[in-house]
Amino acid sequence: MRALRFHGREDLRLDEVSEPSCGKGQVKIRPAFVGICGSDLHEYLTGPSAVPVNPHPITGAKLPTTLGHEFSGTVEEIGEGVVSLKVGDKVAIKPNLSDGSCSRCAMGRQNICSSLGFIGYSSEAGGMSDHAVIDENHAIKLPDSMPLDIGALVEPLAVAWHAVGRSPLKAGDTALVVGAGPIGLAIVQVLKARGVETVIVVEISEQRRKFAQSFGASHVLNPREVDAVARVREITRQQQGVSVSFETSGVQAGLDTVMAGLRARGTAVIVSMWDEKPIINAFIDVVLGEKHVTGAAVYDEGDFEAVIEAITSGKIKPRPMITSKIGMAEVAEKGFRALINHRDQHVKILVDVSIGHLEFQE
Amino acid sequence: MRALRFHGREDLRLDEVSEPSCGKGQVKIRPAFVGICGSDLHEYLTGPSAVPVNPHPITGAKLPTTLGHEFSGTVEEIGEGVVSLKVGDKVAIKPNLSDGSCSRCAMGRQNICSSLGFIGYSSEAGGMSDHAVIDENHAIKLPDSMPLDIGALVEPLAVAWHAVGRSPLKAGDTALVVGAGPIGLAIVQVLKARGVETVIVVEISEQRRKFAQSFGASHVLNPREVDAVARVREITRQQQGVSVSFETSGVQAGLDTVMAGLRARGTAVIVSMWDEKPIINAFIDVVLGEKHVTGAAVYDEGDFEAVIEAITSGKIKPRPMITSKIGMAEVAEKGFRALINHRDQHVKILVDVSIGHLEFQE
Repeated sequence: MRALRFHGREDLRLDEVSEPSCGKGQVKIRPAFVGICGSDLHEYLTGPSAVPVNPHPITGAKLPTTLGHEFSGTVEEIGEGVVSLKVGDKVAIKPNLSDGSCSRCAMGRQNICSSLGFIGYSSEAGGMSDHAVIDENHAIKLPDSMPLDIGALVEPLAVAWHAVGRSPLKAGDTALVVGAGPIGLAIVQVLKARGVETVIVVEISEQRRKFAQSFGASHVLNPREVDAVARVREITRQQQGVSVSFETSGVQAGLDTVMAGLRARGTAVIVSMWDEKPIINAFIDVVLGEKHVTGAAVYDEGDFEAVIEAITSGKIKPRPMITSKIGMAEVAEKGFRALINHRDQHVKILVDVSIGHLEFQE
Repeated sequence: MRALRFHGREDLRLDEVSEPSCGKGQVKIRPAFVGICGSDLHEYLTGPSAVPVNPHPITGAKLPTTLGHEFSGTVEEIGEGVVSLKVGDKVAIKPNLSDGSCSRCAMGRQNICSSLGFIGYSSEAGGMSDHAVIDENHAIKLPDSMPLDIGALVEPLAVAWHAVGRSPLKAGDTALVVGAGPIGLAIVQVLKARGVETVIVVEISEQRRKFAQSFGASHVLNPREVDAVARVREITRQQQGVSVSFETSGVQAGLDTVMAGLRARGTAVIVSMWDEKPIINAFIDVVLGEKHVTGAAVYDEGDFEAVIEAITSGKIKPRPMITSKIGMAEVAEKGFRALINHRDQHVKILVDVSIGHLEFQE
C-alpha cells in the first residue's frame, strides 16, 4: 500500500509499504481526507522532532513514519473484541497517544502525557496511507450524514474547542485571537458557537483577515496599520481589554498583543508552538494587571464529541476552511510547498487519499 | 513634626514639616512602628518611581514625600463624621490609594487601580513621621491585645495572604516558594496557616533558609548546591511538581524554578517586582504543561482583616520576622544601608517612631 512518509527535513516520500493487519481491540481504517497542519509544516522544515529518531516509548515506531494526524476515514475491518464500531462506520481519528502510567496520565491529563505521541508522527499508522490500523479508542464515530471531508476538520476544531475550554469564558465575555491561521480561525468559530459576540482578530495577512471575517470575527485588525492594543481597548470600552485572548502566532509580537490586550485579571491562552522562549512583561501585565496566562495542548476527553455535535447542529459550519484538495502524489508540492510559499492563501489543504488509489494498486 | 522624606535616589532626609490637620472623614494617626520594605529599597536605589515626580492624580502629592507604608499606630484625633474609630484605637494602615473611577476600580479591582498610589510614596502621609492624616477607610482596627510592633507586620502579611488567595490552593496541595525575603517568608507563614504541609523554599542565603525553616517550611533548598527542580519533583513524587508556586525573587532563575517546579496544570503566582522582562518557557511549561501563571498585587478587601484574625488566633506567629528596631534618625544607615549590605541577616527592620520623638519635639 501507499504511505506518505517523513524521512527527514524536507524529505517526504510516497513509499510502498506492507499493509498492516488488524489486531485485537484494533480497527483498520481506510483514510479518506487528511489535513496538512501547521505542526506538519514545522516538522517538515525543522524536524525530525515530533517524528522520533529513536523508538517511541509508546509505539516503538521511529523515522521514517507515515504523516497525517488530522484525518477521517471509514472502518474497513474490526479486530477481536471491538464493539463500539462496525465495518462501514465513518470516523474521525483522535491521534494523541499516551502511556497511561506517567504522573500526568495518573492525574487524568493524558493530553499532555510525559511520553505524548501521535498517530501520524510517532506511530506506524498515519492518515496519508491506504490503510491505518489503530486502537479502537482512537476512532471517534461520525454521524452517517457528515461528509468525510468535514470529518477531517474535527481534529483542528477539537484543538480549538479545548483551547477555548481552557479559558474561563463566560456569558458576555469578549475575546481576542492573535493569528488567523487554521487554529486561530478554528478558535474564532468555536467562540462564535459558544455565543461570544465580540471576537477581535489580529492578523497581518489581508487574506487571512478576510477568512476571519467570513468565520464571524466581529473586528479584524492589521497590526502593521493600526495600534492593535489601542484599538482593542477602544472596542472593549470600560473593560479596557478583552476577557480572554488566544495566542496562535508563535511570535513575540503576538504574545505581547494577547497580554497587553487583556483587561485586568483576563486570561491569555497560548496555543502556539515556540522555537524560542519569548519574554513576558511580568511586572506590568502579570503582577500589576493580575492577568492570567495558561496554555492548551491537544484535547481533553469529550472535545471531539463536542465538535461533532456543534457541526451536526449547525453551530459550526467549517466547510470554507477547506481551500484545496490534492492527491497523495501531490503532497510535497501542492501541499507543503504551497503552504510554505502561499500560506495565507490557504486555511486547510486536504489530501484526498482516494485520488490515485486504484491506479497505484493495480 | 519630623518626617523621613525621600528626596531622590539614595537621598533620605529627616525633615521638619508642618503637622497635618485632620479633615472630615479623616483620622490622625500617631505612627508607632514602620517596616522597611523591599519596595522601599527598590525606590531608594532606583527611584523615583513609586514616588511621583509630578503631582499624583489621586493625591496631588509629589517628590519629596514621606516614606513608610507598612505601619501601625494609634488614633489621636478623628475628623467629622468618623464613626468606625475612636481616639486611642490601635490600627494598621492599609496604604493603597485608588481613584475609584478607572476601568479597574469599576470592576472592583481597586488593588490594581490604573492610578494606583500609596500612603508612604504618593501621598503627604507616611508612616515615618510623627503624625499621619489619612482617610478613615485606610485605618484598619487592631485588637487592643495586639502589640503595635506586630501590627506593623499586618501589611506585608496581607500581601502574602492576597498572593496565596490568588492561587487555586486546596486541601492536600503542595507549595513552592522561591525567595525567602520578607514576602517569601510571609507566604510560608500564610501557607502553613492555611494548612499546607509541604512548603518547599528555594533560597540561596543560608540565613534566610534558616528563617524559612523557623516559619515552618517543610523543605529548604539551596539552588547553588542542589538541582532544586529535581528535588521538588522527588519531594512531590507522583505529582512531579507542586500544585502552586510563588515567585518572590524577581530574577530569571527564580521564575524558571517556579515554572519548572510546577506539576502539569499547576499555578505560579508572581509577586515580585521586575526591572527587566523575563523570558518564559512558553512551549514546554505553558503549552505542553498547561501550567498557569498569574500575579498578585497589593491586597483585596478583607485581606487585612483575615491576617489580623490569623494572628489573633495564633495561626500566624510573626514576631520572629522582626529582626531589628531602629530610631527615625537611623533609618538611612541602620535601615536602608543595613538591608542593602546585609540583606539576608534581616527579615523586617522596624522603625520605632517613638525613639527620639520627645527629644526632637522639645
